[in-house]
Amino acid sequence: MQTPRRGELQVLQNVVIDVDDDGTIISIGHRDGPVTHDLGEHSVLLPGLIDSHLHAPQWPQLGTGLDLPLEQWLLEHTFPLEKRLTEPEFAAQVWPQMVATLLAHGTTTAVYFATIDVATTTMLASTCAELGQRAFVGRVAMDHTGGTPEWYRDADANVSIENSHLSIQEIQMLGNSLVKPVITPRFTPACSNDALIGLGQLSIETGVRLQTHCSESDWQHHYAIERFRTTDTQALAGFGLIRPNTILAHGDHLGDSDLDIVRLAGAGVAHCPLSNAYFANAVFPARRALDAGVKVGLGTDIAGGASPGLLPQCAHAVTASRYLEDGVDPGLSAHERGVSNSRIAITDAFYMATTGGAELLDLPIGLLAVGRSFDALAVQLNRPGSALQMWTEIDDGDRIFEKVVRLAAPADISNVWVNGRRVAGAA
Amino acid sequence: MQTPRRGELQVLQNVVIDVDDDGTIISIGHRDGPVTHDLGEHSVLLPGLIDSHLHAPQWPQLGTGLDLPLEQWLLEHTFPLEKRLTEPEFAAQVWPQMVATLLAHGTTTAVYFATIDVATTTMLASTCAELGQRAFVGRVAMDHTGGTPEWYRDADANVSIENSHLSIQEIQMLGNSLVKPVITPRFTPACSNDALIGLGQLSIETGVRLQTHCSESDWQHHYAIERFRTTDTQALAGFGLIRPNTILAHGDHLGDSDLDIVRLAGAGVAHCPLSNAYFANAVFPARRALDAGVKVGLGTDIAGGASPGLLPQCAHAVTASRYLEDGVDPGLSAHERGVSNSRIAITDAFYMATTGGAELLDLPIGLLAVGRSFDALAVQLNRPGSALQMWTEIDDGDRIFEKVVRLAAPADISNVWVNGRRVAGAA
Repeated sequence: MQTPRRGELQVLQNVVIDVDDDGTIISIGHRDGPVTHDLGEHSVLLPGLIDSHLHAPQWPQLGTGLDLPLEQWLLEHTFPLEKRLTEPEFAAQVWPQMVATLLAHGTTTAVYFATIDVATTTMLASTCAELGQRAFVGRVAMDHTGGTPEWYRDADANVSIENSHLSIQEIQMLGNSLVKPVITPRFTPACSNDALIGLGQLSIETGVRLQTHCSESDWQHHYAIERFRTTDTQALAGFGLIRPNTILAHGDHLGDSDLDIVRLAGAGVAHCPLSNAYFANAVFPARRALDAGVKVGLGTDIAGGASPGLLPQCAHAVTASRYLEDGVDPGLSAHERGVSNSRIAITDAFYMATTGGAELLDLPIGLLAVGRSFDALAVQLNRPGSALQMWTEIDDGDRIFEKVVRLAAPADISNVWVNGRRVAGAA
Repeated sequence: MQTPRRGELQVLQNVVIDVDDDGTIISIGHRDGPVTHDLGEHSVLLPGLIDSHLHAPQWPQLGTGLDLPLEQWLLEHTFPLEKRLTEPEFAAQVWPQMVATLLAHGTTTAVYFATIDVATTTMLASTCAELGQRAFVGRVAMDHTGGTPEWYRDADANVSIENSHLSIQEIQMLGNSLVKPVITPRFTPACSNDALIGLGQLSIETGVRLQTHCSESDWQHHYAIERFRTTDTQALAGFGLIRPNTILAHGDHLGDSDLDIVRLAGAGVAHCPLSNAYFANAVFPARRALDAGVKVGLGTDIAGGASPGLLPQCAHAVTASRYLEDGVDPGLSAHERGVSNSRIAITDAFYMATTGGAELLDLPIGLLAVGRSFDALAVQLNRPGSALQMWTEIDDGDRIFEKVVRLAAPADISNVWVNGRRVAGAA
């Protein structure tokens, strides 16, 4: 079950998928005869899920501290923890547990913010390579004396650029085709102008893509206007950071002209709906962005979003869009409460988590189709004790899909493959 | 870990809980020596979770049809399915699977809307008794020719009242102290005035409590004003239906005077945050209701809320309150976007799912304390592959609690007890 295009569900039944030694799908068709792995009758195969934005060194605090505003959450909890994750001993505990758990949740591709430390960032890339997760791993660049604590920042703009370059080289030297570097200025409040300019240059010189946060919250939105006299998006564009496949996390407060800039550059947004409820002060208008032709993927924003895996995030994306459409304040009349035509369907959300994410990353994943890599997960139906139950009396393809996306618990994910290799599951 | 009062976390460590043969806790203290069941070091015990509002015959459609407005969802999907669940053969499949699954998710008490059929409603009560779930089971009364389809309604007001009475008698004759009837007019649009008046009388005559939906959506809110020239709450009060421990599901559009009526009657609200995002057109202002002294429990509203179990619902309640506080439309400035002082903490949400729900139901549950029934669940920490990981480097009591509530997957719930009897789990 998959969404080749936004809002379009495709259900293939009784098919055999042939995968070559490079992990690429070479045929999909009806066939009898023996197969390497038979899902059986009570399973559904989905394309691998793409988490287009998450913070690896925040994994140990997943689920905590969500009552704090973004700035306080960063300074009192998040930066200290990220600092701890520059210790190789702690990173050696956290990275494998995190990557294995995300794989078990069906996250076949992850786009990581790592730490400011080159060594533990490379360790993360190695862990992904070893456990078989497709990943972009970014050493975080942050040198601004105003927006970062002195105990967790790059010494200056040159160090920001040099260490980013070094991290690229180290990750590329791992020689794993699934694991790639990504240039990662944290966000404008944490970066000096010199660093932002230099990192844009580094992207041009190395051909390595970029990611950063953009207009996540009221605070960040107004910070940019205060500092740059323009929107965060326009500022990033001015620094040369909005390039093909640049991933802008959140983007809740992007205006129409910002969306134009993103679209025209071939960049896109990592939409992180659950996190946004806590830290963005507003709902990202996903439908508006998709309608405008902007590439949109889905992200957990771990640990700002306190939930691993993309299936729950699909449900959160639909729920957020409903809050945006209907509004929230019962004290207002219905017509002044929300923003009409904002709702998205579960197929739109799944598209963002798969095909849309693949487009955002420009990778041949997100769809089980000839020429694409075999990244997939199998979901078991009617497991005893699971809420994911089909009733032959009432269920058909569309309903099964919606149930799978909304109800599959981690334990219902029976097998996960990345590039043809089984990376999680018991079978 | 538990919340004796709203917002107050209590952590008891290394204690032994003694339970008598009636399932009542008779002592909690520190003690050495052998115990019947030792949780070990890597588990947390929580009070049993109370689902104060859900629809049993909607279980097979859990997770589907959420793109429809409430009226269409009811008429095209929900009523036909509820009709199917008046067939004993289908009910015999659905009820045990549902009750067992809910128990495995930690739902030790459930307040059910069943079907309009007496026999399958009694079957549900029997199933709860057999599997050991504490439950209120309500035969649904609905006789209004305008608000119900002719193929799924009581023949007239007398039948509504008589069958409700019969259902009470059948459930009471089961003789199970954990399973009780509840008088259940569906909601005012589905009930004639005569039925509503008669059901209020039936409550007085039998001493059996009531439940109904109240001011869930704009549509229902305005329907009441149109039909009764007053709010839904005032209308229900006029019919004699707002009585001690009456459970009003949703209540999103209750005004201050409505909340007063509810509070003064000793009734309360079953807050169903996830469902509300899809069907209520606004967020229930839980903090305002709690501050006003109204009893508030938490409900899944299965299948309007597409998620079983109350731990996810706790997170949804906090998330919904954040949407209400911050607002949703990035096109508005921050100060005109939301409703300040609306956020609730995770401890508030857990209170509603346990101690608050117990107060709503007037039952000695929801808290592990002497004199209360031993309804509880054990959550395993650091299960391989689970996102629920503690890191000794950073985690303490408060953080562990927040992680457990936000991150525990069904598979992390290792044991569940109701009234001292183990009803789910492998140990």
